[in-house]
Amino acid sequence: MYSFNNDYSEGAHPKILEAMINANLIQKTGYGLDDNCSSARALIRQEIGREDADVHFIVGGTQTNLITIGTALRPWQAVISTDKGHINVHETGAIEATGHKVIAMPSKDGKLTPAHIQKALDLHTDEHMVQPKMVYISNSTEIGTQYSKAELEALHHICRQKGLYLFLDGARLGAALTSSVNDLTLQDIARLTDVFYIGGTKGGALFGEALVICHQDLKPDFRFMVKQRGAMLAKGWLLGIQFEELFTNNLFYDLASHSNEMAAILRKGIEACGYSFYSDSMTNQLFPIFPDKVITKLEKDFLFSVQERIDDSHTAIRLVTSWATSEEACRRFVSLLETC
Amino acid sequence: MYSFNNDYSEGAHPKILEAMINANLIQKTGYGLDDNCSSARALIRQEIGREDADVHFIVGGTQTNLITIGTALRPWQAVISTDKGHINVHETGAIEATGHKVIAMPSKDGKLTPAHIQKALDLHTDEHMVQPKMVYISNSTEIGTQYSKAELEALHHICRQKGLYLFLDGARLGAALTSSVNDLTLQDIARLTDVFYIGGTKGGALFGEALVICHQDLKPDFRFMVKQRGAMLAKGWLLGIQFEELFTNNLFYDLASHSNEMAAILRKGIEACGYSFYSDSMTNQLFPIFPDKVITKLEKDFLFSVQERIDDSHTAIRLVTSWATSEEACRRFVSLLETC
Amino acid sequence: MYSFNNDYSEGAHPKILEAMINANLIQKTGYGLDDNCSSARALIRQEIGREDADVHFIVGGTQTNLITIGTALRPWQAVISTDKGHINVHETGAIEATGHKVIAMPSKDGKLTPAHIQKALDLHTDEHMVQPKMVYISNSTEIGTQYSKAELEALHHICRQKGLYLFLDGARLGAALTSSVNDLTLQDIARLTDVFYIGGTKGGALFGEALVICHQDLKPDFRFMVKQRGAMLAKGWLLGIQFEELFTNNLFYDLASHSNEMAAILRKGIEACGYSFYSDSMTNQLFPIFPDKVITKLEKDFLFSVQERIDDSHTAIRLVTSWATSEEACRRFVSLLETC
Amino acid sequence: MYSFNNDYSEGAHPKILEAMINANLIQKTGYGLDDNCSSARALIRQEIGREDADVHFIVGGTQTNLITIGTALRPWQAVISTDKGHINVHETGAIEATGHKVIAMPSKDGKLTPAHIQKALDLHTDEHMVQPKMVYISNSTEIGTQYSKAELEALHHICRQKGLYLFLDGARLGAALTSSVNDLTLQDIARLTDVFYIGGTKGGALFGEALVICHQDLKPDFRFMVKQRGAMLAKGWLLGIQFEELFTNNLFYDLASHSNEMAAILRKGIEACGYSFYSDSMTNQLFPIFPDKVITKLEKDFLFSVQERIDDSHTAIRLVTSWATSEEACRRFVSLLETC
Repeated sequence: MYSFNNDYSEGAHPKILEAMINANLIQKTGYGLDDNCSSARALIRQEIGREDADVHFIVGGTQTNLITIGTALRPWQAVISTDKGHINVHETGAIEATGHKVIAMPSKDGKLTPAHIQKALDLHTDEHMVQPKMVYISNSTEIGTQYSKAELEALHHICRQKGLYLFLDGARLGAALTSSVNDLTLQDIARLTDVFYIGGTKGGALFGEALVICHQDLKPDFRFMVKQRGAMLAKGWLLGIQFEELFTNNLFYDLASHSNEMAAILRKGIEACGYSFYSDSMTNQLFPIFPDKVITKLEKDFLFSVQERIDDSHTAIRLVTSWATSEEACRRFVSLLETC
Repeated sequence: MYSFNNDYSEGAHPKILEAMINANLIQKTGYGLDDNCSSARALIRQEIGREDADVHFIVGGTQTNLITIGTALRPWQAVISTDKGHINVHETGAIEATGHKVIAMPSKDGKLTPAHIQKALDLHTDEHMVQPKMVYISNSTEIGTQYSKAELEALHHICRQKGLYLFLDGARLGAALTSSVNDLTLQDIARLTDVFYIGGTKGGALFGEALVICHQDLKPDFRFMVKQRGAMLAKGWLLGIQFEELFTNNLFYDLASHSNEMAAILRKGIEACGYSFYSDSMTNQLFPIFPDKVITKLEKDFLFSVQERIDDSHTAIRLVTSWATSEEACRRFVSLLETC
Repeated sequence: MYSFNNDYSEGAHPKILEAMINANLIQKTGYGLDDNCSSARALIRQEIGREDADVHFIVGGTQTNLITIGTALRPWQAVISTDKGHINVHETGAIEATGHKVIAMPSKDGKLTPAHIQKALDLHTDEHMVQPKMVYISNSTEIGTQYSKAELEALHHICRQKGLYLFLDGARLGAALTSSVNDLTLQDIARLTDVFYIGGTKGGALFGEALVICHQDLKPDFRFMVKQRGAMLAKGWLLGIQFEELFTNNLFYDLASHSNEMAAILRKGIEACGYSFYSDSMTNQLFPIFPDKVITKLEKDFLFSVQERIDDSHTAIRLVTSWATSEEACRRFVSLLETC
Repeated sequence: MYSFNNDYSEGAHPKILEAMINANLIQKTGYGLDDNCSSARALIRQEIGREDADVHFIVGGTQTNLITIGTALRPWQAVISTDKGHINVHETGAIEATGHKVIAMPSKDGKLTPAHIQKALDLHTDEHMVQPKMVYISNSTEIGTQYSKAELEALHHICRQKGLYLFLDGARLGAALTSSVNDLTLQDIARLTDVFYIGGTKGGALFGEALVICHQDLKPDFRFMVKQRGAMLAKGWLLGIQFEELFTNNLFYDLASHSNEMAAILRKGIEACGYSFYSDSMTNQLFPIFPDKVITKLEKDFLFSVQERIDDSHTAIRLVTSWATSEEACRRFVSLLETC
């Protein structure tokens, strides 16, 4: 049984593990104030071309989202997201638990547009309603789609114009940046958003997200919030070491490229069999629509999750590849599909 | 200039004011532990036929909603509402500020159905999502529609079946119960919901909502929550006195009937002129759709609010009548409309 | 049975009631945007000599405290109070429910000093601890004591120096400002604090506190927070009318003076009988220490509350007078005491 | 420079690292639903002799505290702690951020007694105050002291009697259980508390705390809260693997014993030099009181933190040993001290 269930089914890339082993018995300062974190911060600042950015390492994505949004908003303010946004659906109300409404705008392709933002603003006009103040997007999105540079610039523009913070959830940023249709760089992301993060958990690390804060308003006292929400890892250097490795010798991009290449094998095989997709993904998440009887056959050898019932006899499933996915497994999946 | 802007533009019915004046210099116990509150509680319990119900008097509706929902839900639980629900739109995120998500189900007529509830349950399947635990409805609804007994019984049924609390916001309950198409009584409301309130602010009082808790789970320590959220009025007898009057000699129903009758004058006049409505309301809120040039003429003599842009030349407005609305003003509105 | 239980056992001064009655059937704008509120705001701004101050009318004190503190603080910040502070003891954790710690500094006389503030700052040194950002004081305090101008200036000074907001709870501000030992004016209060309120509930109104915001940081979007916490009264003009009356012809001060004068009768009578006090109060709250057998006799004719057990045979009780307290009752209390 | 700064300055015990390496490329189920977590849960249940206990693995201590307390309490309830409690001082208001007051009882030795609890209950009498519902203790405490079986039984007794949950923070439980004066077992802890945790971060793991829930009330839906607060680790098996190793072949106890033995070398050396201690600790945290000039010499070769200024020329410092502390370093410290 091979799992395409998600991109966090395996541990860390061997180089990362090795670095952790080498540092294991060296006494370190706690709470992210160690040399490895400093060095990882420097590597990221260099990569994004922003010496002024604050970089914080946090264990997981939901934590990162709730801390960032909870810090950015005053009590009556709200964050705009698509209805498919991770914060809207898959975080057990973590944002609401910080006291803030998620304004969910319906989006077929999982992407947010300036029109969505304008509509959300138009619907919130006075003090009897929440005040939109932040925009949350994911790249790649929850259904594998991704933003072009033009699209991100348009979001940046309306956010600047309307006084909204733009926050990019980069749990799968590597997959977006290394996809064949991408035209964005990390420098672009840093320039066009106010705060974003670079996902480690789904990008070859054991765990960890690197949050990059570019907007001055969001920087002060951020570590207080990290500590308060229980996200200040005692042995914080474990996060620093992992991001040092990811941003040495291109490892971050190489691992993400691998996951995209593995997905491409699946995608091409599925297309060749004549099946269509629920979303237009060139990243490591694919959402093919299969007849139910095909799914029944596939699930004998492969693990994957169901995305949505399409009609009486068809279902969209989700296939996810990772930095560790084997080419052989992908080819085996396609072969099995060809026999269905 | 006459205002149909809302049903809280005037003070209290003279009998209520008089009772407050008569009690003014009598020393009373604070915080709702006085004789007037006791007597008002007894009158309400008798009216609903439930000696076991807990009754709390709270100054305003948003307060009542946030305290009730905040008490009913555990941190990870959520409340289901229509997208038009007062808690979803017009309370500046008061529910989210207690830490809970409002699951908003689109509804054209402002009413929630068992199908909405089932869909909300189907979409929330595991611990990565909030857990629906309460259903919030308003009667009459935010757009003047109302529930029939059969509809409320169906909601009651699915809530019991699925372990959900059913909460009815009765800010305009009087208007619903005295409308010409109503087939519900206060006894029915008490039987079919777990907690509901009887609106005083929009029903002839200066302020005040009477929250009635029928479900055992929601009763313990409720006064702690009332106090914590700043809703325990020091001179609590002011609330007791008002509800004593409302539930003496049918005053509550008479005042609501008046508001409906005034609305009926407007409705019939509008219908006679051939205009249609945004919603099918037999209560004290009407949402006629007028050509913009008609609105321009009406707003020279009358205050009202805009509900929604319908098309390039038409807009739905909101007209609200109250216990104090004058018949003459209603007739004057219709006359003016006839000349448009 | 006469009650010295508190200063909110009676309704409102007749002039206030009369003004409410006169306005009863005039249609008004809701939510505090009416002419009465405007006029009351103007009267208060004039009284404090600050045209730039924002004034908000809120129904009760706990509401006012939680909204003000919840608006002022970022999520990781805390408010410094004495251990006797109303927010620390008597609000069912209302401040903590907004997410903020109350740093409680022990104080015998109920007053906070610069030394308390410095100690609180010394104890909170890094991001593993909450960050003190606001100082909360009451004048008069919870045990009837009051701040001199020199004391308030010293608090102002350290707050400015350390970047702390100074918030004065004036639920009983009238009693403080009209006490025989007072040397502060409302102008001083406005100059020396960042935000404060003028208590109406305990000062002759049916209900209502007038919050005055002088610091620019605390002004933006304040009405959003008022609405979110359920404190935006629909018929907001009821608050405006009451404060119009209080700040017309000196009524606010006259009523507070009366309560102090009535307390003085009690105080002098108690002193003449040779009893001592738990606190040194020249305002409308007195805390005499009586032998238990004296208390047993007094409580046959008078209602009052117990403050604290002093020793095996003595107890401090609390006697509170109000704008409506009768001189005859005070003299009767003293006479009874003389016979004990 | 050798650090006695804390017990989380080094990585994990080699056996733990090795197990993580061995599992690195095996595909696992996420979110703690994997076989390693199951096996670790079984080992812990066996160790505590409670097949009915729920076991959750959480990355850090502050997270574990806020999730547990936030789950146990209704909005108006509070937790009793000593003033030195980690939740009261060193978590940046994490508990208050969940909406709950920490009732802090002064304690010289860092331990809570039934008298403290009774006093806290006596001070909280009605709905104007928070309602105490949980008791929080740490074993070993924040200043290295520990509870005897008789003391824990007394706490258990009063908690049962008063309807309070008893929660034991076991971040340093290993050190307590293996100290020379301990008479408690993990079975006792499970029997005498309602919920507790076994610290991994300070006990030889890279990170991780094993929360054990024995009380039925605290079990339902706990994973919802874990997820909502961002504490559900994607690669949850990393936690399982570490606790599997800790509870195999006594590793958990052996590592804790080592830390205590290293502390004993320091303690005996310090005593032999005639110095006294701030607290009476037989565990891995020591708080010797040194003349300032001695501290100046020690800090040239050793890292440690300052606990409290004792007088004009003396200061209590904190020395912490860990599973990885070298005997040589301890002896070197004592030698240096002897020369001071």
